[in-house]
Amino acid sequence: MKTAQSLGLALDQGQRRAVARLITWAERNDPRAYQVLSERYANTGRAFVLGVSGPPGSGKSTLTDAFIRRLRAQGQRVGVIAVDPTSPFTGGAVLGDRVRMNEHATDREVFIRSMGTRGHLGGLSKATSAAILALDLYGCDTIIVETVGVGQSEVDVMRVCDCTLMVMVPGLGDEIQAIKAGVMEVGDVFVVNKSDLAGARRTARELRAMLDLNHGEWRPPVEQIIATQAEGLDAAWTAIETFISFNAEGNRAYQRRFESVKHELLGLMQSAILEKASQSQAHVLKIDELCAQITRRELDPYSALNQVLAILFSATR
Amino acid sequence: MKTAQSLGLALDQGQRRAVARLITWAERNDPRAYQVLSERYANTGRAFVLGVSGPPGSGKSTLTDAFIRRLRAQGQRVGVIAVDPTSPFTGGAVLGDRVRMNEHATDREVFIRSMGTRGHLGGLSKATSAAILALDLYGCDTIIVETVGVGQSEVDVMRVCDCTLMVMVPGLGDEIQAIKAGVMEVGDVFVVNKSDLAGARRTARELRAMLDLNHGEWRPPVEQIIATQAEGLDAAWTAIETFISFNAEGNRAYQRRFESVKHELLGLMQSAILEKASQSQAHVLKIDELCAQITRRELDPYSALNQVLAILFSATR
Repeated sequence: MKTAQSLGLALDQGQRRAVARLITWAERNDPRAYQVLSERYANTGRAFVLGVSGPPGSGKSTLTDAFIRRLRAQGQRVGVIAVDPTSPFTGGAVLGDRVRMNEHATDREVFIRSMGTRGHLGGLSKATSAAILALDLYGCDTIIVETVGVGQSEVDVMRVCDCTLMVMVPGLGDEIQAIKAGVMEVGDVFVVNKSDLAGARRTARELRAMLDLNHGEWRPPVEQIIATQAEGLDAAWTAIETFISFNAEGNRAYQRRFESVKHELLGLMQSAILEKASQSQAHVLKIDELCAQITRRELDPYSALNQVLAILFSATR
Repeated sequence: MKTAQSLGLALDQGQRRAVARLITWAERNDPRAYQVLSERYANTGRAFVLGVSGPPGSGKSTLTDAFIRRLRAQGQRVGVIAVDPTSPFTGGAVLGDRVRMNEHATDREVFIRSMGTRGHLGGLSKATSAAILALDLYGCDTIIVETVGVGQSEVDVMRVCDCTLMVMVPGLGDEIQAIKAGVMEVGDVFVVNKSDLAGARRTARELRAMLDLNHGEWRPPVEQIIATQAEGLDAAWTAIETFISFNAEGNRAYQRRFESVKHELLGLMQSAILEKASQSQAHVLKIDELCAQITRRELDPYSALNQVLAILFSATR
């Protein structure tokens, strides 16, 4: 599987290691990954993509684990893409909760993959979208995308999902509340996990109050759950299904997908200009020279930008 | 102050409202902001820029508040840029801890500004860098940039700073530990705040152990503090000054600044291509048409990207 053709063939034959290789290529921004996916894009869009997000320590992995069991019991093939916090500078990954999911490691119908952020400018959502397509082609019925944190790149990732579940927990401080407000509009369904802790009912009430003040046609439901004891998971899953039904009405699903596609294309454009800047040695040297001038304050970054764009654009003639 | 010229003049005269207007223009990505800054870039680079970051609820604002007092007692003019979590979709801002800083509102030598993330692709660090330049031109001796969270856009913001202080707290879960690892290399100095809480010493010890395993020439120090009681702040400030001395040796400061400039220029290039895509109505319509085709799976995003780039690049001939 060294060429796009051979990997594509292995993928079409349903080979598990072809999926792994394809995602690795996508993570490295290897053009072969996008050749394989480009040729097979018409066959994608079959899987249901569920985003699971929320603040650190909210128990997203435990919940994801519970969902895997549920979907496996229904005979589904399940994919999990865990977007882990890793160093933006070295690419060093932290495994964290991944170890808990080891029990699924021997289940051939579950495909779990951690994605490193690796500090690529605009690269995380590009690689994650590619991984979703790869798992979709592999025949996963449901793909769960778990993101830690609520940064812009996570929001970009969540926009690709068909439904996003926000996991909250009771007893977090004011700043968490502020972050909640930031992700309000990304969440389609909210759960308050660890609802055996004090303040759970209050957190759920506050969430509902905030959602009442600020929602579109769909008012996201808020369910109280205890993921470790599998409590409230039926209600949470029903809420997800209710959202899917709502979204299926009229052209809502099309509109949502259109907006996500547009956002993704703009992201690809941003990645492309960086690739263009680094493709030619002459460009790299020129940009370094301009940066040295800016560093010495002989040139300002905004004038330098115009120079760089002129160089990159004229080079395509 | 409706033209770049008139605002520039007001800024040169040291008018406070000119700074506010300039930052507002930058937030709106108004070209006039960059004209003013472009013409005055040679006069910037005088302020010391301190980044203060860390997970939600770690007490960053309390610490920033304590630093403002300290710097004011030294007769410094202080600028604060608070990068708040806001909705990436509506631009709605959450004030949160900003209210605590109201006591500085009447102090003419303190300039506090909240920045909304507003969901601009690549826009947050562009606007934040512009705000730093504006406060620098206004004559601030120290500019504190406070960021909430540890997403990619926050990391971009932190890279602009001369020194970045990471604020940690005891008793956070495994996932917070994972996030810590993600920001390890961004922090120049670490503090464990709320050190009257149980587990503070352990958190500091674990941090030191992680830093021992993974650091460059500079091993970031870890100080235990209680910001609300102003305990340990002398040691924290001394650690910051020690880093500044270290960074001043050889061409370290130049190298750090060069890397930050390069990162910023690449970010500006990304913003520029999005602006290019939205400047002409023909481009907007064409991109929407391609997105509709992708949504219907008649076209794949990677082939669409090549079409878009061809259109944008040929348009500059």
